[in-house]
Amino acid sequence: MTTEKKIFKKIAQSKKARAGVITTAHGEIETPIFMPVGTRASVKTMWQEELEEMNAQIILGNTYHLYLRPGHELIEKVGAGLHGFMKWDRAILTDSGGYQVFSLSSMNKVTEEGVTFQSHLDGSRHLISPEKSMEIQRALGSDIVMNFDECPALPATKDRLRESMELTLRWAKRCRDYQLKDHQNLFGIIQGGLHHDLRTECMERLKEMNFEGFALGGLSVGEKNEEMVSFLDNFVHTMPEDKPRYLMGVGKPLDILNGIRAGIDMFDCVLPTRNARNGQFLTKGGPLNIKKERFKEDLLPPDPECNCKVCRKYSRAYIRHLFTVGEYLAGNMITYHNLYFYLQMTRDAREAIKADKFDEFYSSFYNSYTSNMWN
Amino acid sequence: MTTEKKIFKKIAQSKKARAGVITTAHGEIETPIFMPVGTRASVKTMWQEELEEMNAQIILGNTYHLYLRPGHELIEKVGAGLHGFMKWDRAILTDSGGYQVFSLSSMNKVTEEGVTFQSHLDGSRHLISPEKSMEIQRALGSDIVMNFDECPALPATKDRLRESMELTLRWAKRCRDYQLKDHQNLFGIIQGGLHHDLRTECMERLKEMNFEGFALGGLSVGEKNEEMVSFLDNFVHTMPEDKPRYLMGVGKPLDILNGIRAGIDMFDCVLPTRNARNGQFLTKGGPLNIKKERFKEDLLPPDPECNCKVCRKYSRAYIRHLFTVGEYLAGNMITYHNLYFYLQMTRDAREAIKADKFDEFYSSFYNSYTSNMWN
Repeated sequence: MTTEKKIFKKIAQSKKARAGVITTAHGEIETPIFMPVGTRASVKTMWQEELEEMNAQIILGNTYHLYLRPGHELIEKVGAGLHGFMKWDRAILTDSGGYQVFSLSSMNKVTEEGVTFQSHLDGSRHLISPEKSMEIQRALGSDIVMNFDECPALPATKDRLRESMELTLRWAKRCRDYQLKDHQNLFGIIQGGLHHDLRTECMERLKEMNFEGFALGGLSVGEKNEEMVSFLDNFVHTMPEDKPRYLMGVGKPLDILNGIRAGIDMFDCVLPTRNARNGQFLTKGGPLNIKKERFKEDLLPPDPECNCKVCRKYSRAYIRHLFTVGEYLAGNMITYHNLYFYLQMTRDAREAIKADKFDEFYSSFYNSYTSNMWN
Repeated sequence: MTTEKKIFKKIAQSKKARAGVITTAHGEIETPIFMPVGTRASVKTMWQEELEEMNAQIILGNTYHLYLRPGHELIEKVGAGLHGFMKWDRAILTDSGGYQVFSLSSMNKVTEEGVTFQSHLDGSRHLISPEKSMEIQRALGSDIVMNFDECPALPATKDRLRESMELTLRWAKRCRDYQLKDHQNLFGIIQGGLHHDLRTECMERLKEMNFEGFALGGLSVGEKNEEMVSFLDNFVHTMPEDKPRYLMGVGKPLDILNGIRAGIDMFDCVLPTRNARNGQFLTKGGPLNIKKERFKEDLLPPDPECNCKVCRKYSRAYIRHLFTVGEYLAGNMITYHNLYFYLQMTRDAREAIKADKFDEFYSSFYNSYTSNMWN
């Protein structure tokens, strides 16, 4: 069994919210942190230079997509991993491929060995096992590697969730036994739906395997938002103090706010990039849909309180025009702002935690965001 | 009749090729110059910051497209013109709308008054007359305004070309009589197909109207390339020495090289932006299509001799992957490089002219480009 490495240092706490530093071979990550999603070795429409300029400290890559195209062997061969391939020198987290195998592929079939599935691209057949997921992530050379876990379809009975958890735990052991590269850190994924007892059991048994960090999977997958918030409030503070806590695939700005309040350190979500393609700016005053007629002659920047390079210079009227006629630059600008907004939000939260004023920050952000002033 | 302003100063000549400076209210333009095409108030996929960083000195906006969407009144109202609307502080040239009226709209009908046409977007009916084109370009506030001219369908008989030229001359007079803004400069467009005598007559009669510059229209529209080159070689040096010479809508890198050799100062073309969308890099060694299998594991930059931010950092293998999976960033990177390549080519030509070594530059560029080493 691999010995765990200590990669997290807590530097401040404000009620349950915490600020810390994660140390990786590709730089330090100041938490709480949002991780832009770079599915196919690109955070949609963004240059790596732009991610650096907005001070993204870690991005996410998708094992499933990169395995299918261009293939992890090619990435290892020509780039010695994802960092070199895409020229991103800061930290990278890769997911295990599990989520996409279940959500994107067809004909997936789960056995003790792993998951057999057909590619969503060409129908070709593949098996991803815990070992295969580790092999791919090892080749990608990410700084944080995720366990290969089963993601049961929801709604599911408690029995089904327990069965899935047991399989996930057996797979976790196999992942832990796989030899990754020296600089890589492996996170265990806690499953168990909204059942506090299942989640706790899963966590306790994962703790025995000495993972470098813990993630919460299977949230924001259809349950009511208040159920997730309540679960996080009750559960997160019971997770190990000295390890990073990652809430996978979550979420909207207020979800992240609630996650931070509960003690989560790391977040990722496609929302800021995906919603950009529908014309949605995420702002301090709530979402703003640039398509609306009312912005036609509006000279204000998208978010008057934002200091990003879009909001410092360009008007809603101009971006609305670009979006309306279908110019690429519109999606590019909205993506840039939205990612900046998420990163600024986590930076502001961190400062508030360090000043032990997270409650004030929470209320202020919550009230401003829910004022929904652009609707 | 408006009195002409002197906006051009020749600073060097090497055989017929010339280097100069065009002075506008939005900065000086060092010629020969390539003008990126920003059809709908955006040079496709480019931030204005990126155009500045590659030292674009003037861009082109399309009267026809901006008139239809978002409308010149809106641009004047919210931006006091195109500069303010799109936040571009350097020079802008707008075309007259004539070319698009003939090429994009349906049911266009030419009368003495102007051209009646149906929008290619919604079929709505419009009339663009010389006065209307000037009204639109006045509202857009471009630094260089183009005459509204007729673009006859080709091939055309000499009689048809003469008839069209006569109409263009009557329209030119109406454009010249229109009161533009003080900072605006009006260029006359010389038509006449490949007929030297028609072109000369058109130019002589335009000269009487005291335009601030002259453009050659109706080239690169289906004639043989050597016919255009030969025409340029014989004609351009007869154009006024003290005014800018603009070859409209041309062209491929070698067309621009030949244009400069003949004495042209200004060029525009959609090729570097449009071909980017098909995966074509334009390089010192000729075109390079990034889709090709042979670039799959190629660690070289797209153009090893280029110093742009793409070629300084990213590999063919990475960009090929991005293009293959359909990531926006691919088109973005190719566009950036291609525009940089065109601008660098005109900068290099300028330096060669100043050193009176244009012939050497011509041979060197020509031999390198036609080696077609990436095919």
